[in-house]
Amino acid sequence: MELFFSPLACSMASRITLYEAGATATFTEVDAKTKRTLSGLDYYAINPLGLVPALRHPCGEMLFENAAILQALADLHPQAKLAPPSGFARSVLQQWLSFIGTELHKALFIPLFDKAQPPASRDKIMQAGAKRLAVLQAHLERREFLLDAWSVADAYLTTVLNWHVTADVDLARWPAVKAYFERMCARRATATAMSEERALYAAELRRH
Amino acid sequence: MELFFSPLACSMASRITLYEAGATATFTEVDAKTKRTLSGLDYYAINPLGLVPALRHPCGEMLFENAAILQALADLHPQAKLAPPSGFARSVLQQWLSFIGTELHKALFIPLFDKAQPPASRDKIMQAGAKRLAVLQAHLERREFLLDAWSVADAYLTTVLNWHVTADVDLARWPAVKAYFERMCARRATATAMSEERALYAAELRRH
Repeated sequence: MELFFSPLACSMASRITLYEAGATATFTEVDAKTKRTLSGLDYYAINPLGLVPALRHPCGEMLFENAAILQALADLHPQAKLAPPSGFARSVLQQWLSFIGTELHKALFIPLFDKAQPPASRDKIMQAGAKRLAVLQAHLERREFLLDAWSVADAYLTTVLNWHVTADVDLARWPAVKAYFERMCARRATATAMSEERALYAAELRRH
Repeated sequence: MELFFSPLACSMASRITLYEAGATATFTEVDAKTKRTLSGLDYYAINPLGLVPALRHPCGEMLFENAAILQALADLHPQAKLAPPSGFARSVLQQWLSFIGTELHKALFIPLFDKAQPPASRDKIMQAGAKRLAVLQAHLERREFLLDAWSVADAYLTTVLNWHVTADVDLARWPAVKAYFERMCARRATATAMSEERALYAAELRRH
């Protein structure tokens, strides 16, 4: 099993998941600027969109998209109970993965990373995003995790919330979200994954 | 089972799916402007984000997000074979649902619907979107459906591609995508769903 990742990108959710499962994989780093692996391979030949993560599944095929990869990793390690295996609880997991991917990752954080964004568009994106974070706030006020137990959706949400500094989103406005993020960051597997990727990110910055 | 929808919104994928399954549901229309059901209920009380679709699942609970609802509908009608039930084929379905939701629905079409978008941002969105549509083009040149047979991912993609006129995206630039869209629109279940929702959309326009 091989995971293509870039440090601190959304692919970190897969590293967190693997560490939570006590599992490992070959981690192949893709330079976010050059879109080459550190050994020099053209990543566009693997994913024409240049996006991470990509997973070379144990069946030999490539799999793309966080929501699909995280569920596949959970299914490959059923003993670790990283996702409800089936039924309505699995649907709720898919709901959260989709919410994080569409409403937070793509509609809030990615546009805010664009420093050329005019202030008026930035305000509009933040206003829409604030409604999404308010939904999370209401949900997390009463819960330790997104579901009844830790799941791959928490790995994804933690990874996305970790961008709040770069995106200049003040999590203190949503105290239950902030407390959740801090709680998740304190988990051993998550802390290890984040610390490793921060070091790799610093190395990436030094390369450019 | 009750489906909350707005005409021609992404919730149409659920109607297509139900018709493909030969199944039905209570369809509750949400006015896209007032966010009230046609009987006057405040839809924000059901979904605080005001987004459709929402599904009152047969278990009694509410489910949100297209990717989750479409998979739940497929699982509720296994005899109709609307999704691979498990394994890597299911992961590939999830990959396409995520790609459509994040890369096309949220990153391409929704920003293009914003008529206040300055031409320079519009060009940037369209350039990024063109790469996504090129990936689809390459995939569909060799295939009738996204997977080996019709699946709920085709319902979602058809629904999103149906927005190309409003978003001013010329599908002729991607001939295999255009041919796919026309092929899907000709399917009986899809044609029925689209024709019904076009009539409801016209009625919505007349109301405002």
